[in-house]
Amino acid sequence: MARSDTGGDTGVKALLFDVFGTVVDWRTSLIADFSAWSRASGKSGDWAGLVDAWRGAYVPSMNEVRKHPERGFVNLDSLHRASLQRLVDELGIGGLNADDLEYLTTGWHRLKPWADSVEGLTRLKKKFVIGPLSNGNVALLVNMAKAAGLPWDLILSAEVFQHYKPDRETYLGAARLLGLQPGQVMLVAAHNSDLRAAQSLGLATCFVPRPTEYGPHQVRDFTPDGEWTMVVSDLRDLAQRFGC
Amino acid sequence: MARSDTGGDTGVKALLFDVFGTVVDWRTSLIADFSAWSRASGKSGDWAGLVDAWRGAYVPSMNEVRKHPERGFVNLDSLHRASLQRLVDELGIGGLNADDLEYLTTGWHRLKPWADSVEGLTRLKKKFVIGPLSNGNVALLVNMAKAAGLPWDLILSAEVFQHYKPDRETYLGAARLLGLQPGQVMLVAAHNSDLRAAQSLGLATCFVPRPTEYGPHQVRDFTPDGEWTMVVSDLRDLAQRFGC
Repeated sequence: MARSDTGGDTGVKALLFDVFGTVVDWRTSLIADFSAWSRASGKSGDWAGLVDAWRGAYVPSMNEVRKHPERGFVNLDSLHRASLQRLVDELGIGGLNADDLEYLTTGWHRLKPWADSVEGLTRLKKKFVIGPLSNGNVALLVNMAKAAGLPWDLILSAEVFQHYKPDRETYLGAARLLGLQPGQVMLVAAHNSDLRAAQSLGLATCFVPRPTEYGPHQVRDFTPDGEWTMVVSDLRDLAQRFGC
Repeated sequence: MARSDTGGDTGVKALLFDVFGTVVDWRTSLIADFSAWSRASGKSGDWAGLVDAWRGAYVPSMNEVRKHPERGFVNLDSLHRASLQRLVDELGIGGLNADDLEYLTTGWHRLKPWADSVEGLTRLKKKFVIGPLSNGNVALLVNMAKAAGLPWDLILSAEVFQHYKPDRETYLGAARLLGLQPGQVMLVAAHNSDLRAAQSLGLATCFVPRPTEYGPHQVRDFTPDGEWTMVVSDLRDLAQRFGC
């Protein structure tokens, strides 16, 4: 049986998950959240446009932190808040006060899971240590888990390592804190680039496609493009492959 | 109503728990675990004597790390392993190979909760973010939680902060990662000294007596000796006070 067909012989003890896009559907969640808030608050704006532009600012904002370690680590809530301030000006979304901006920023704490996520994670938790390995900050991930019912055993965040993925400190730091060798840890992600970084450091890898993550704007990650340890259709399928 | 009678007006969002002694009964657990292993393996020793001496080495071994930051942080599994090596020699427990020493050291990962812990934590989790704030390392705390059914939202460990309690970096670092002010975090502990450190940094405090933690050798912490925010009889009582 090919390696991608089963995880039975992987020697993996812990499954770590990319979160934005892999476990939760940030785009649909934020557009729905902000649209409902807009109706209730009377604030108006192009929420889909804001969400897409905001996500577009995500990697560049982290790259600024990665390129300038001398400035110190800045967590994702702070990066989100700074990007938002700029984007509402650029998009002409007016009339937002500080509380409104705070409400929108913490929208990233209120993201909803994909339909298979909670069941898949709950089954996987019986056999494995499970946790996020996310660029989201700890408070964001904890609040999300409480609201969405994600049954993590622990929260592993870029904030703990003071480095954003794909810096090696995140993947190797996670294995170290778990007391495991890199090969005993599997990264599960919908993004080939994340898996590529993990694989280069010796972690096991699992690709799960989320072809609607970016809505009509998705241009990549429809299929696996590396020799990943496993490829699954969703997190229920991953549980099934592991006999959970 | 006195402050110690209710937590209803504390403004607390997260409850962090000391673990060894507060949530789990390390002494009874280790003596039972090692005694059963002794019968199965044929290895013999004064297990109660070892456990008491091992716990006696705990604070001094952490203080060495705290006094010498230039040497780098050493996690608790490593401190436990080093103390064990010395103690088996001193106590004349012979015939232990590397696997045996590893088994005994990971006994600290297999500690059993007090009778009220799992129910209390499960109820408190509905209203609060809950986590350990322990000198145990992350892997130890994760393995313990899996085995004992402790339903933590996240794992906060001295290892994450590279400082042992009562260093301020642990209490303040926990609040920072949670995105909370110190006063929105309550430390729950069976040890007045831990609460004193937390209180001096602005955290809310809750004392829970565990008068049999040290078995016949207990000499302190039978009663609260500070002006703690709350005093409860056990973790079920804490849940009750918070209306959980």
